[in-house]
Amino acid sequence: MIEEFVLQCPIPLDDNPTVQMGHGGGGRMTRDLIERIFLPVFSNDLLAPLHDGAILPPVGGRLAFTTDSFVVRPMFFRGGDLGSLAINGTVNDLAMCGARPLYLSAGFILEEGLPIKDLWRVVRSMADAALAAGVRVVTGDTKVVDKGHGDGIFINTAGVGVIETSLTIGPMSVRPGDVILLNGDIGRHGIAVMAEREGLEFESDIASDCAPLAAPVRALLAGGVQVHCLRDLTRGGLTSALVEISESAGLPMTIDEEAVRVQDGVRGACEILGLEPFSVANEGRFIALVPANEAEAARALLGADASVIGTVETAGSQPPFVKVRTSLGTARILDLPSGEQLPRIC
Amino acid sequence: MIEEFVLQCPIPLDDNPTVQMGHGGGGRMTRDLIERIFLPVFSNDLLAPLHDGAILPPVGGRLAFTTDSFVVRPMFFRGGDLGSLAINGTVNDLAMCGARPLYLSAGFILEEGLPIKDLWRVVRSMADAALAAGVRVVTGDTKVVDKGHGDGIFINTAGVGVIETSLTIGPMSVRPGDVILLNGDIGRHGIAVMAEREGLEFESDIASDCAPLAAPVRALLAGGVQVHCLRDLTRGGLTSALVEISESAGLPMTIDEEAVRVQDGVRGACEILGLEPFSVANEGRFIALVPANEAEAARALLGADASVIGTVETAGSQPPFVKVRTSLGTARILDLPSGEQLPRIC
Repeated sequence: MIEEFVLQCPIPLDDNPTVQMGHGGGGRMTRDLIERIFLPVFSNDLLAPLHDGAILPPVGGRLAFTTDSFVVRPMFFRGGDLGSLAINGTVNDLAMCGARPLYLSAGFILEEGLPIKDLWRVVRSMADAALAAGVRVVTGDTKVVDKGHGDGIFINTAGVGVIETSLTIGPMSVRPGDVILLNGDIGRHGIAVMAEREGLEFESDIASDCAPLAAPVRALLAGGVQVHCLRDLTRGGLTSALVEISESAGLPMTIDEEAVRVQDGVRGACEILGLEPFSVANEGRFIALVPANEAEAARALLGADASVIGTVETAGSQPPFVKVRTSLGTARILDLPSGEQLPRIC
Repeated sequence: MIEEFVLQCPIPLDDNPTVQMGHGGGGRMTRDLIERIFLPVFSNDLLAPLHDGAILPPVGGRLAFTTDSFVVRPMFFRGGDLGSLAINGTVNDLAMCGARPLYLSAGFILEEGLPIKDLWRVVRSMADAALAAGVRVVTGDTKVVDKGHGDGIFINTAGVGVIETSLTIGPMSVRPGDVILLNGDIGRHGIAVMAEREGLEFESDIASDCAPLAAPVRALLAGGVQVHCLRDLTRGGLTSALVEISESAGLPMTIDEEAVRVQDGVRGACEILGLEPFSVANEGRFIALVPANEAEAARALLGADASVIGTVETAGSQPPFVKVRTSLGTARILDLPSGEQLPRIC
């Protein structure tokens, strides 16, 4: 059975065409790839493929600007793929600045020999994700590297958003007594990618949580919540997010382990793989630090999957640390993972 | 003799340390790399390494937004390196939109095993180039891919600039009678990289023309020149720039070959390598299309190396084409190179 997206590709896929060095040369082949693959898919009035950059209308207010490269392996996994990740990752970084994401750039580094079919599938997924997140891809670039010097597709996206709140959102605004909210269960993205890569079959089908986070952040801000800090839980997971904010703010935190939801399948997979769910990457999860008296309002705005997982404590005489109270009544201290738990999960 | 930059590296280079997978994991090693390599070098008040993005003050006016990935091989060549290229390439794309370049992002894809020394040298070169071009690197990202799945360092830069002119600069503004100016000799960048890669020894020492172009563009605009179109001559060289503008504008052009300066060494190298100087990449050359009555003023503003190389003709009954009048009195038609003349020159 031929998948529908294959039939829609402007370059016929019957003979399994592949990316050639010439597609990166700036000549007729580059032009052809842009006009047949990128233009129809990202179609919008600001996209200026034959000019050196996009011209954007004036934006009133402070801007957020961010970048991320995506090298996930494999490119396709349950619940997402390289394309949706490349859009949502940058959309989410903008959202964590309290910004409304507006415009994205897309830079592709393609490996010679890449099937055009894979490129088409990834680019289509990017377009779908951009539509869902309400952003436009307005400028791009394509390079080709010789076979054996890349890995299929690497994508860099950079993003520009507008900050429509007057709040200063970041670790510097965190205060003792702030409550820490989490918008859902953790660990699925990292485990979904790992399962696909290693060919592992877990009992339950674990799907990545990859999703855009601009809407829930907008809900908090539109709802009048005095958001102090936001952070998405990507590489290093919940652990890195908490430890980095604690260190930057100079304030300790206490987390209630039982309040942090982990699917049974994720927990089982982590045990088999020797991983700590708190440190596994997510692509649709974030924490929001808000004043205690706004915690319930914030939780309600974030929906049924959100929960309060901890609080920010008063600074003591020692360097700040993040303490996790376990269900057994004991406590452990979180620290940044020293190296890499799961390589190339984003 | 130990080079000076080696002594200045915050990570001691004595034992030739290399990039590890853990440097991309989002934990302690990632943090260490950011704090010891990237932060001291790119130091500025907007750079927010531990936050998800940079917060920029409001920008009055239209914005230009662009991106480029840099995969040049080798990383170091006469007259430039991957780092200076990654800054100037994006600065120049912004300048070609008529914008004043303001902020850059930097996304690194590092290959496991890369000597930290090479990373340090490239990053320092980026900082020097950013200073020279008057832009700030305000946000970044680092990924690490396993050995054999990358090629040392790939860099993506995206850039934001402000458009302070009310002119509409682009192919749509080109008119019959416009004069085409070029800011210097062509072909040196591509040949310099090729010479380094192939170990070729040309008689003259050919150095890349890699340079920021924001200042000459600003000179034109500040001088009151009614600039119709700008284009830098990167991949595909002068040929691609002329053919693409001609096709987009729907207008033919005539170029005087003798007015396009090519160093003897570049010409000789092109003959040996079977290349056409018009199609070799540059990284510090651009064309400006201006009304005929402003050509002399524009040439004076661009300096002694600039020259008028041709004119835009009236549309005829045939599709537009770019005709080159040779010194022998004959004429040839330029067309986009079909594939790649020189792979990985930027």
